[in-house]
Amino acid sequence: MSLPSATYKAEWLPKVQLYRQRLADSIPKEYLLDDTKVPEDLDTVPFNAVSFLYNEKLLSEREFAITDLKCETLAAKIAASEYSSVEVLKAFTKRAVICHQLTHFATEFFFDQALERAAELDAYLERTGSTVGPFHGLPISLKDELHIRGKVMHLGNVSRVETVSETSHISARVLEELGAVFFVRTNIPQAMLFLDGVNNLTGRRTTNPINSTLTTGGSSSGEAVSATFRAAALSVGTDMGGSIRLPAAFSGCLGFKPTGKRIANGTGYNGQDAIQTTSGPMSKYPEDLQFFMKHYINDGKPWTKNASLVRVPWITGPASQKLLKVGIMYDDGVTRPLPAIERGLRFAAEKLDAAADVEVVEFFPIKPQELLELGLRFFSLDDGPAKLGVLAESNEPLFPMAQEAMNGGGKEFTASENRELTFTRDAIKDDFNNYMVEYKIDVILTAVHLNVATVPQKSTFSLYTLPFNVLDMPAVTIQTGLFQDPAVDVIKGERTGFRSDMEKTEWSGYNAETHRGAPIGVQLIGKRFYDEELLNAAIYFTSLFK
Amino acid sequence: MSLPSATYKAEWLPKVQLYRQRLADSIPKEYLLDDTKVPEDLDTVPFNAVSFLYNEKLLSEREFAITDLKCETLAAKIAASEYSSVEVLKAFTKRAVICHQLTHFATEFFFDQALERAAELDAYLERTGSTVGPFHGLPISLKDELHIRGKVMHLGNVSRVETVSETSHISARVLEELGAVFFVRTNIPQAMLFLDGVNNLTGRRTTNPINSTLTTGGSSSGEAVSATFRAAALSVGTDMGGSIRLPAAFSGCLGFKPTGKRIANGTGYNGQDAIQTTSGPMSKYPEDLQFFMKHYINDGKPWTKNASLVRVPWITGPASQKLLKVGIMYDDGVTRPLPAIERGLRFAAEKLDAAADVEVVEFFPIKPQELLELGLRFFSLDDGPAKLGVLAESNEPLFPMAQEAMNGGGKEFTASENRELTFTRDAIKDDFNNYMVEYKIDVILTAVHLNVATVPQKSTFSLYTLPFNVLDMPAVTIQTGLFQDPAVDVIKGERTGFRSDMEKTEWSGYNAETHRGAPIGVQLIGKRFYDEELLNAAIYFTSLFK
Repeated sequence: MSLPSATYKAEWLPKVQLYRQRLADSIPKEYLLDDTKVPEDLDTVPFNAVSFLYNEKLLSEREFAITDLKCETLAAKIAASEYSSVEVLKAFTKRAVICHQLTHFATEFFFDQALERAAELDAYLERTGSTVGPFHGLPISLKDELHIRGKVMHLGNVSRVETVSETSHISARVLEELGAVFFVRTNIPQAMLFLDGVNNLTGRRTTNPINSTLTTGGSSSGEAVSATFRAAALSVGTDMGGSIRLPAAFSGCLGFKPTGKRIANGTGYNGQDAIQTTSGPMSKYPEDLQFFMKHYINDGKPWTKNASLVRVPWITGPASQKLLKVGIMYDDGVTRPLPAIERGLRFAAEKLDAAADVEVVEFFPIKPQELLELGLRFFSLDDGPAKLGVLAESNEPLFPMAQEAMNGGGKEFTASENRELTFTRDAIKDDFNNYMVEYKIDVILTAVHLNVATVPQKSTFSLYTLPFNVLDMPAVTIQTGLFQDPAVDVIKGERTGFRSDMEKTEWSGYNAETHRGAPIGVQLIGKRFYDEELLNAAIYFTSLFK
Repeated sequence: MSLPSATYKAEWLPKVQLYRQRLADSIPKEYLLDDTKVPEDLDTVPFNAVSFLYNEKLLSEREFAITDLKCETLAAKIAASEYSSVEVLKAFTKRAVICHQLTHFATEFFFDQALERAAELDAYLERTGSTVGPFHGLPISLKDELHIRGKVMHLGNVSRVETVSETSHISARVLEELGAVFFVRTNIPQAMLFLDGVNNLTGRRTTNPINSTLTTGGSSSGEAVSATFRAAALSVGTDMGGSIRLPAAFSGCLGFKPTGKRIANGTGYNGQDAIQTTSGPMSKYPEDLQFFMKHYINDGKPWTKNASLVRVPWITGPASQKLLKVGIMYDDGVTRPLPAIERGLRFAAEKLDAAADVEVVEFFPIKPQELLELGLRFFSLDDGPAKLGVLAESNEPLFPMAQEAMNGGGKEFTASENRELTFTRDAIKDDFNNYMVEYKIDVILTAVHLNVATVPQKSTFSLYTLPFNVLDMPAVTIQTGLFQDPAVDVIKGERTGFRSDMEKTEWSGYNAETHRGAPIGVQLIGKRFYDEELLNAAIYFTSLFK
């Protein structure tokens, strides 16, 4: 990492220190775990925060009962006054505070404000006998990028440490109008540039909740922790290249990137048509993703708030089609997944194949090299220099992966080149769609990344997620329930003939021991606007994996 | 117009002459009107082809009955074997051939092929007792841009005079699979560049069917004639800046530009994300537009053929809401409409105001200057030079309006500038949407152009249509049933203080006599993806204007 300059130290460090102090002050002290219980060597000794929570019984039975309920049931119990919104908020806040002590996932708590809101919701319910909406009383965490009026959104840049949002993000507005309670916002990488939850603002890397020596991935790093640890009833990230699906896979939860324009997009990339960015739900339960989408769309009617969104209702219906045809892509044609991922895919294939109503076929990659190049170009098309500018404003030290990411950009594309690339993009979109329609493939099953979570600042960029942003196909990370096992997940024989630098780097550098216990997630991809069918499959497949 | 070069004469003129010969040969001779009946001075003496058709009873009673039926009824009668597909085709072909003699609207007939197809459809219906689909036996005309496999698509460029399409356009495929019969393709401007149906290929300008000395507008020039003359049961154009709505207004029919991505887009501008191009139906009946959209989408499921399209069904339902709130925009803030258009708008406002279930309010333009500049930039963003290249390949002579259109382009925008523009675009989209949602405005009523049809090569570019491509809002041209009247539509008093060059040009150059008898169309605009509600309004309003 580059060294901080003198002007950075003089001008910016004081602001950063103030920011850190505010973060520390914002933590509701009454829920803090005794400090002695928090391991000091999180960064070097593998620590499973989730197991710790349950093994040490850090919540009361009732608090566990509340916070472990799926959203639909929890919302129903709040609506029936079985739990008050205030009680639910307190239970989740306790869980979130412990989560933060163990993983540093938050950028800001605002418990008092949330408590006021929860009390109002309770009063409303008592007064009127009905809820504000389907999210009534559900505590929801939000990624930094999903800004809230009156609060800082820095997008991982020191130069934005004092930038207070004047409006709330459309997703925040929709959820709030339907009854959600916001109480914590969560961490992201420096300038949202890479797959690791670290920046110069919070001062502490967000650690993987399953193995603290590993990265959470990014850029929805804090939200992935929130969902895995169940620090909130719902977690909300954004995804432009895999920023929901990758940290979900690395950290051990599920994460859904809908088709673009079904719900609100991110903040950081407005005006970018070439590649779709979108917000999306994360959770440890697939049913919660569906709950989020159904109510956000059908009750929230987000197109009345944002004219760029598509007015299309969420189709509700039976949880599964008569026969689901799944195409398994074991290899994307550029980088072969490492042993743990391969094991996950074979496990999934076996479980699916054993189900009477699922047909499994192999799916071979379509124009992988072209797709990859398209994605990388779209990323540096227009905002490489812009990003650099935001970082340069404070002259903040760059993390190694930020430095690397910067190397990609720099060339200014012309509008004509832009158009040629989008023309190619649309043609490949059709290639995928035509193939899936012709062979009646409902869902593609593949890796999320060519490896499970690795140590911080060592992840290569993902080639398994980005293509489905380029193609704007809905995609969801689900968990197999398996974890990396150094005894099993070893490379057998010598590998040569690498097809890409990335494949070479990952395979040559692979050390089975490094990834011990990392969750093995896989990715499901659907046809554009078949989000409903995709989440039905995610729910069904997850049940088959048990 | 520039003079043809020697190489153009030597290399290209022979090809053009061959093309013209093929067009002449393709006309089914049995339907030709006695040549002596066709006025020789069409270009200089106003001639109303539609009145002529009816007054001279150029079709038999039965042929009139068939060709004047709305699509839904006609399709039902074919399905009930009351008319055969062959008889229907013959009736429309006769009407289309006469139309071509009077207006030169076609680029190609293929009657024999269509006859074969119609006979197959009849045989299918007899054999199975059911139709191929909702368009079974309906003869449909297509703009040149909507290509058909095996046929030339030149997009108005001499250099493409021999370019045979290898595939059919998605809209052509959808319609054909649902039973449509194609039999004629129609004319467009040089390089689709301007509002006048003339190019160097067909050798004859397509003339306005209501007043032959006036332009049809463009670029769906031939389709506007087809719809007004009812030369086909349905006419299909494309619209990226007004190319459906403008010629519809000028020529006297209705034309619908749906929200982008609901049905297939055009051909000429693939890869262009900044401004949406779309195909859309044209007809003399508003119900036909609805018929087209409903069946194209719900039965054709176009997203299975083109992955860029949105999977959203066409909502069918009652023809009108309880209360429709209409915002009338009399002036776009840049160019005030001329007297005939103003009269049309006031007439419409009066009729709507008199209806118990319509509320009329005034709608004031939102950021008109910014919108206009955006639109013009989007047009020259990336393909100005590309267009010039296609024209330069043959070095064909340029029509004055093509020359003018070229002057606009030339500057290469960067991808970053592109992004800034789309950012602004999305912000103004929200401004419109927020305003319409807040004030519950269902539909905006305004001009299609600041004037009615004028003499060829004299139209300014339209500022009333382009904004709604930029904003991707659905928009439809409907007819008031009024026509320009030189005795009434005069400028009263002196006008000064022009807000734009275009306003100055049109107002200073206005000669009421020029536009005698030109149809007065107006435009209705809906919220994005509220296409269904918009066409319901178009049907209802048209009935009120009678």
